[in-house]
Amino acid sequence: MKYLMDYQEGERVVAFCLIKNKEAGVASNQSEYLNLELGDRSGTIMAKLWDVNAEMKEWINVKSVVKIDAAVQMYRGKKQLVIQRIRPAAASDEVQMESLIPISPVPVDELWTKLTHAVDSLQSATLKAIIQEALATEEIQDRLRHYPAGVRMHHNYYHGLLEHIVSLLTAAQSLLPLYPHVDRDVLYATCILHDIGKLYELSDPIAPDYTTPGQLIGHLVMGVEMVSGICQKLDISVGDAEVLHLKHCILSHHGEVENGWGSAVSGKTPTAVMFHYLDQIDSKMNALSQTLGDMTEEEEWAYAGVLRRKVWRGY
Amino acid sequence: MKYLMDYQEGERVVAFCLIKNKEAGVASNQSEYLNLELGDRSGTIMAKLWDVNAEMKEWINVKSVVKIDAAVQMYRGKKQLVIQRIRPAAASDEVQMESLIPISPVPVDELWTKLTHAVDSLQSATLKAIIQEALATEEIQDRLRHYPAGVRMHHNYYHGLLEHIVSLLTAAQSLLPLYPHVDRDVLYATCILHDIGKLYELSDPIAPDYTTPGQLIGHLVMGVEMVSGICQKLDISVGDAEVLHLKHCILSHHGEVENGWGSAVSGKTPTAVMFHYLDQIDSKMNALSQTLGDMTEEEEWAYAGVLRRKVWRGY
Amino acid sequence: MKYLMDYQEGERVVAFCLIKNKEAGVASNQSEYLNLELGDRSGTIMAKLWDVNAEMKEWINVKSVVKIDAAVQMYRGKKQLVIQRIRPAAASDEVQMESLIPISPVPVDELWTKLTHAVDSLQSATLKAIIQEALATEEIQDRLRHYPAGVRMHHNYYHGLLEHIVSLLTAAQSLLPLYPHVDRDVLYATCILHDIGKLYELSDPIAPDYTTPGQLIGHLVMGVEMVSGICQKLDISVGDAEVLHLKHCILSHHGEVENGWGSAVSGKTPTAVMFHYLDQIDSKMNALSQTLGDMTEEEEWAYAGVLRRKVWRGY
Amino acid sequence: MKYLMDYQEGERVVAFCLIKNKEAGVASNQSEYLNLELGDRSGTIMAKLWDVNAEMKEWINVKSVVKIDAAVQMYRGKKQLVIQRIRPAAASDEVQMESLIPISPVPVDELWTKLTHAVDSLQSATLKAIIQEALATEEIQDRLRHYPAGVRMHHNYYHGLLEHIVSLLTAAQSLLPLYPHVDRDVLYATCILHDIGKLYELSDPIAPDYTTPGQLIGHLVMGVEMVSGICQKLDISVGDAEVLHLKHCILSHHGEVENGWGSAVSGKTPTAVMFHYLDQIDSKMNALSQTLGDMTEEEEWAYAGVLRRKVWRGY
Amino acid sequence: MKYLMDYQEGERVVAFCLIKNKEAGVASNQSEYLNLELGDRSGTIMAKLWDVNAEMKEWINVKSVVKIDAAVQMYRGKKQLVIQRIRPAAASDEVQMESLIPISPVPVDELWTKLTHAVDSLQSATLKAIIQEALATEEIQDRLRHYPAGVRMHHNYYHGLLEHIVSLLTAAQSLLPLYPHVDRDVLYATCILHDIGKLYELSDPIAPDYTTPGQLIGHLVMGVEMVSGICQKLDISVGDAEVLHLKHCILSHHGEVENGWGSAVSGKTPTAVMFHYLDQIDSKMNALSQTLGDMTEEEEWAYAGVLRRKVWRGY
Amino acid sequence: MKYLMDYQEGERVVAFCLIKNKEAGVASNQSEYLNLELGDRSGTIMAKLWDVNAEMKEWINVKSVVKIDAAVQMYRGKKQLVIQRIRPAAASDEVQMESLIPISPVPVDELWTKLTHAVDSLQSATLKAIIQEALATEEIQDRLRHYPAGVRMHHNYYHGLLEHIVSLLTAAQSLLPLYPHVDRDVLYATCILHDIGKLYELSDPIAPDYTTPGQLIGHLVMGVEMVSGICQKLDISVGDAEVLHLKHCILSHHGEVENGWGSAVSGKTPTAVMFHYLDQIDSKMNALSQTLGDMTEEEEWAYAGVLRRKVWRGY
Repeated sequence: MKYLMDYQEGERVVAFCLIKNKEAGVASNQSEYLNLELGDRSGTIMAKLWDVNAEMKEWINVKSVVKIDAAVQMYRGKKQLVIQRIRPAAASDEVQMESLIPISPVPVDELWTKLTHAVDSLQSATLKAIIQEALATEEIQDRLRHYPAGVRMHHNYYHGLLEHIVSLLTAAQSLLPLYPHVDRDVLYATCILHDIGKLYELSDPIAPDYTTPGQLIGHLVMGVEMVSGICQKLDISVGDAEVLHLKHCILSHHGEVENGWGSAVSGKTPTAVMFHYLDQIDSKMNALSQTLGDMTEEEEWAYAGVLRRKVWRGY
Repeated sequence: MKYLMDYQEGERVVAFCLIKNKEAGVASNQSEYLNLELGDRSGTIMAKLWDVNAEMKEWINVKSVVKIDAAVQMYRGKKQLVIQRIRPAAASDEVQMESLIPISPVPVDELWTKLTHAVDSLQSATLKAIIQEALATEEIQDRLRHYPAGVRMHHNYYHGLLEHIVSLLTAAQSLLPLYPHVDRDVLYATCILHDIGKLYELSDPIAPDYTTPGQLIGHLVMGVEMVSGICQKLDISVGDAEVLHLKHCILSHHGEVENGWGSAVSGKTPTAVMFHYLDQIDSKMNALSQTLGDMTEEEEWAYAGVLRRKVWRGY
Repeated sequence: MKYLMDYQEGERVVAFCLIKNKEAGVASNQSEYLNLELGDRSGTIMAKLWDVNAEMKEWINVKSVVKIDAAVQMYRGKKQLVIQRIRPAAASDEVQMESLIPISPVPVDELWTKLTHAVDSLQSATLKAIIQEALATEEIQDRLRHYPAGVRMHHNYYHGLLEHIVSLLTAAQSLLPLYPHVDRDVLYATCILHDIGKLYELSDPIAPDYTTPGQLIGHLVMGVEMVSGICQKLDISVGDAEVLHLKHCILSHHGEVENGWGSAVSGKTPTAVMFHYLDQIDSKMNALSQTLGDMTEEEEWAYAGVLRRKVWRGY
Repeated sequence: MKYLMDYQEGERVVAFCLIKNKEAGVASNQSEYLNLELGDRSGTIMAKLWDVNAEMKEWINVKSVVKIDAAVQMYRGKKQLVIQRIRPAAASDEVQMESLIPISPVPVDELWTKLTHAVDSLQSATLKAIIQEALATEEIQDRLRHYPAGVRMHHNYYHGLLEHIVSLLTAAQSLLPLYPHVDRDVLYATCILHDIGKLYELSDPIAPDYTTPGQLIGHLVMGVEMVSGICQKLDISVGDAEVLHLKHCILSHHGEVENGWGSAVSGKTPTAVMFHYLDQIDSKMNALSQTLGDMTEEEEWAYAGVLRRKVWRGY
Repeated sequence: MKYLMDYQEGERVVAFCLIKNKEAGVASNQSEYLNLELGDRSGTIMAKLWDVNAEMKEWINVKSVVKIDAAVQMYRGKKQLVIQRIRPAAASDEVQMESLIPISPVPVDELWTKLTHAVDSLQSATLKAIIQEALATEEIQDRLRHYPAGVRMHHNYYHGLLEHIVSLLTAAQSLLPLYPHVDRDVLYATCILHDIGKLYELSDPIAPDYTTPGQLIGHLVMGVEMVSGICQKLDISVGDAEVLHLKHCILSHHGEVENGWGSAVSGKTPTAVMFHYLDQIDSKMNALSQTLGDMTEEEEWAYAGVLRRKVWRGY
Repeated sequence: MKYLMDYQEGERVVAFCLIKNKEAGVASNQSEYLNLELGDRSGTIMAKLWDVNAEMKEWINVKSVVKIDAAVQMYRGKKQLVIQRIRPAAASDEVQMESLIPISPVPVDELWTKLTHAVDSLQSATLKAIIQEALATEEIQDRLRHYPAGVRMHHNYYHGLLEHIVSLLTAAQSLLPLYPHVDRDVLYATCILHDIGKLYELSDPIAPDYTTPGQLIGHLVMGVEMVSGICQKLDISVGDAEVLHLKHCILSHHGEVENGWGSAVSGKTPTAVMFHYLDQIDSKMNALSQTLGDMTEEEEWAYAGVLRRKVWRGY
């Protein structure tokens, strides 16, 4: 199947897509037009829709699914669509969500199985109980199967957060034999729960925005509060050393407080210090993969937002 | 009554005092000596005890109360004691704790009354209930009546934290009429609870040190967890806007995250932003008062640790 | 009376307003158009004027007052005017300046009375004489009754500086009883004179820009030079301790030198340190009030330039 | 066998050790004394030697090996030796270097085998040739088998650099399957050569100090120059993409230039970015292992120089 | 002769120029247009070309030379061209490169003579040999006679780098008598070679961009590698103190490592420290000269990119 | 003549010197001793005086001149004196101040002549008048002939400030031909007056300390106030562009405000920007000359406080 990103300059596109953003304007002939950001699983593209009438304005909204007939043109070095015809998608079109938004390349069930295997492998009864409880509710399971790891920077796609967690678990497992002072169970628990607060910091998995609690409390403290709530429910002592350690790793996973990146405390154990770097590696590698994956054959350098500089595709 | 700080060079001191710190050394004649830091309510002073024997080493410990007979000498521009005789205090000496450690000049009952008045004045039933519950346990009451606001920097004396809270409440009350976008009840609640985590971040009120949870979690998140625990107990929704606001103010009271001073989030409401500055004013004014209070008549400038520079006594 | 900000999408606006900014462009049909920034006391709005002729270009200038007939449209989520007719305001229109630019909500005479009461209350003959002399000239009085406290950030409206001063005096008065090491008279004098240099750092009260001396010397040093000039005139010794203290507070009111915010020295007295925070509170609260005041009912979050992040409107 | 660190307060020590540092002083009785820093493979300890005569001063020098008879005392909370007798070690004492300085716990031959296996596994003929050439000279081999990875911070012991390299190779190997955009051969080559300049930046493996070229050029650029020299010798083009990539990874391995940690360029490929974090993990884990390993049973917290804060031993 | 920058609003321009940048767009009438950045030796200007056809798109490219017939209009306060006619330049037009790109006001031969005189004056046989070898190849000579010192910031014009070098040599010569601890020959050699790596960091002298080695290695290390390559060729010892010093000065000429401006080491000799400041003076004075030179008579202030603030033209 | 710094370990010193600092201590035998910092024109050295009696304590004070008979010993790698005999210097000893404190190697009259020549060469009547007036009072002349340029960092010796000024004038004169946008007269005036405030920021030329106005106002603003005072006296308009420019250069000579080094404004003219770098060069070169001058033949590296790192003596 052909997706939005696959069309080249001059081609005609007939496709279903999702409206990600919309901006109205008035042309010099006083008629209205819309600048739309359209997306499907292959990515997003800007589109121009001239001569918009009142009726159209009613059903053309962010998160609507539409069918378009459009031409691909180049504008400032980027492809852009000029829409000739547009209509809302109907139930009978049977459009699948999976075709409309970017999605992790790894199947969600495979990821989930790996996650549960990691939980099963924990030797600490306390940590295992906390994680099992955290993953027991349908709401959490549902969110964890769909949420991205972020709005923009890395793993920013359907079940991106779950992919990030499983990737971290695999990395952690492979490095643990080298560093005996790292606590295996706390490290695994941190991989699983460090961003769990994001399930409530973000508003939804399709066009995620920051929630009010997300902005006021932040996903680090939200995650710690979820852990504490579970402990209270399971009657685990607040002074339990493993729980303290886990909470410390969550609160410090953005690095040193002095750097101003949002940790509530600086890492003070080998486990906490190591996890911060693993998280940096996994998130940066994912973001750079996307940047490099989007480059064309002729491009040797492209701007990578995650590093705020250009990166090299190599040879 | 005459306290340690009142004695001048050349005088003989006979007094009860508290051992705050101790370091052993060996003199060139191979006999042992002790460098002691002694304190009473007037402050602390270094003292030298020569020719220490094994029996002495048993009862001369940090937090012991002793009676000394000593001479005041000058060493590197500072007064120092050379101890001639020393013995442990006995029950029959009836030494009062109030005479042994620095203590807030304001009576604790007066402070407590002001605190409860502030709580009574809250119009928000939710916030009032949370604070009343927080102050209801004997343990919290006991700690809040004795703990300093910190190990070193400001209000670092008996019931210093309570004095700091009441001072902030007074300041908040007086500024509120000027800034109508500040939420009165959330501001009051923040004054009372912003440092409540310190009651468990610090080990004890006499010679306070950082506890393990204090170092791993920090008093900001510890305070937020106390608030959340109370909400659960009182069946207050975790999404309650006032509770979110209060937690936000506690988490952001060390200023902008980018500064690296330990906030978990940057202040995002007028109340949170204003509280940070009030807390800065109250803590810095208290610390500077101590610096200026310790200066002699002839001194015009003295080093203030809180500012990391010299301050001027004025005219 | 209805002002610019009161009109909604689709309405027709017939109103007097001030031209705050103008940019020319050429449309694809080769005719010229103007992008205008129009303002009145309620705020500013962008406006488009198509088919501009040579005669129009002569009288459409920044700071001109014009009468427009225009339609309100939405553009990129913001209201914008499309001007149908425009003419210069005539004397016979009797347009009041007060209706054309934003203005402090507090009447200027009320502010002035409070200011003079504060001056009268000073116990230091020296400081009182300096301030009275500073406020004695008609030029200063005239400027102080009209100047904003800044171009953009806070109190950026007619007699905004005076409002800022009086607000600081009120705040200072209410906090003074708490902090006995703060010098009341110097604090009051700093409230009044700390930004006095802005009367010459800024070019005029209506569309203020930075003057050349303002950019080369800055309002801190300009203020200190005004104080020194007055001292020389009044035969007050340059070594007078209160004058030194006042000048120190003016020079340090942007906070620690190390922060790079423009203080010439770091605050070295309780008075100087406290004033910096009071100034932060008053300016930030004013700026946030404007941000929150501009939000609509449905908006929960809005970007606040003064904090470089979004702020929460609350519940 | 019992080493210096194994003796407790009050015990008598008779042992061979290395003089790491020496400072002379004059006692109040006008006789001279020496403060010595003594070390063996278990660590270092301060020692006092009273009544030093002229003859002693001749043979008591940094890097001398001596035999001491001393008593362990406590001073400022740390063990210290008071030396009763001291004599230079003689050839007949047959003291082994391995007993005198700290040494990596992994046998050097085992490390060397792992290193050569990694080199053999390279698929890039260019990179393999460069590394084989780099390791071909006896001087390099000799240094690489003995040098520490640094003067103080991490892997600061006999063949510590080789241990660091092999540890990084193992970590790299285990993470590579997760991150397909990382160049395996360049990553391996960077593990092996990133610190190769340290073999000339440091003066010797026993009491290493910085050489003059080390301080003027630094080990990053020194390593790159070694690579370039080899390329010239092997007739490999300076424009070879793999060589450029390797040199880029060496020059950027201290992280972003903006951080000011000494990189000559910021990492601009996934391989370079990832290596920086791997290097951080390996060096910090090694340093923390030493800190935690030096703690006694009762200690829960200890200061870790590498993090400039206290670290927690856990439970 | 009249150049692009000399034309005023309303005038008609018939001139040859170089295309520096091009962006395509689609007008509301669906026809294509181009935004072109055109330049000649006087500077660059934006130009609009409406109704572009397919044939035009073939020969209108970056670095093409074209002849235009256009009108000067004002747009957003800046002059802009609207092109009526355009054709490619033909060989018969005999357009000179010197008329098409900005060029140093000093004749290149005069600069070259000064450079060689400076080389001749060196007393160190080693440094003289290195520089003579560096300047001996035709490629280097050719580049050094044409390359700018940078893409944008300073001396960004034809043979700008050579002008910068000669200016630094003159400055160095004049300051040397004041500072006897500065090494004259190393300082001269650094003036000549500090930016020599730019000849390969930049792609070409007309529309320079960063090369791949330039971005991966940077001109500091590239310059040092050139020096080392020459030493090897000339059989000069790598440990030669003057060569070490020269390389140190090149590697440290962007200032302290901690500032994050790209030095590989911080300056550790008077010569290195002084050269950094001389380079700052020469580059900033050149950039400011351009800013001030571009200002009109009425302008008193203009934005200077090199300082990220406005600069004053003076009186 | 032999000075303090000329004596080697083991030698006996009989000399006049100045007491720069004094600290009392009590030995283990209960007798008092003094740690003295003694100085003469060659530098300063620590000295120990045992068994101090009450009478001695009366006349051994900071800034006293004494005659000592002492032995040179090594302590912690540095020379130290052990005083055998000490007495106060008498009038009959005819000790010259020049022999007691470090002094600029250039004769003061030669410096003064160069300064006046520079003043005479000014073409601006305004600036010439201001400087002449500034140098006209006996007090300023006296101070300028004796004051150091600072307490510690650079030119920290008798008439060091004058030497610094003349050195800057020479450097400025030699660079001016290269940079035509720099204002010659303003640059010269800035060389002469930029640190003029130091004459009142420091307490005296022999053992300088910061005065109270110096700490509260700082020498930048103090210098500007001196200039303004002179302008008022000479009836020069406060708006005079040259005076504004001079004041701007004084206020900005510590570099960009954002760096937090104490400028009140950032440099906004070529003259101001260039002067900052000239001042950096001259002060750093002077400080490094002292560091290098104090090194012995065998030392290759020494710590330079001005750079906070070690510097290389070279070859």
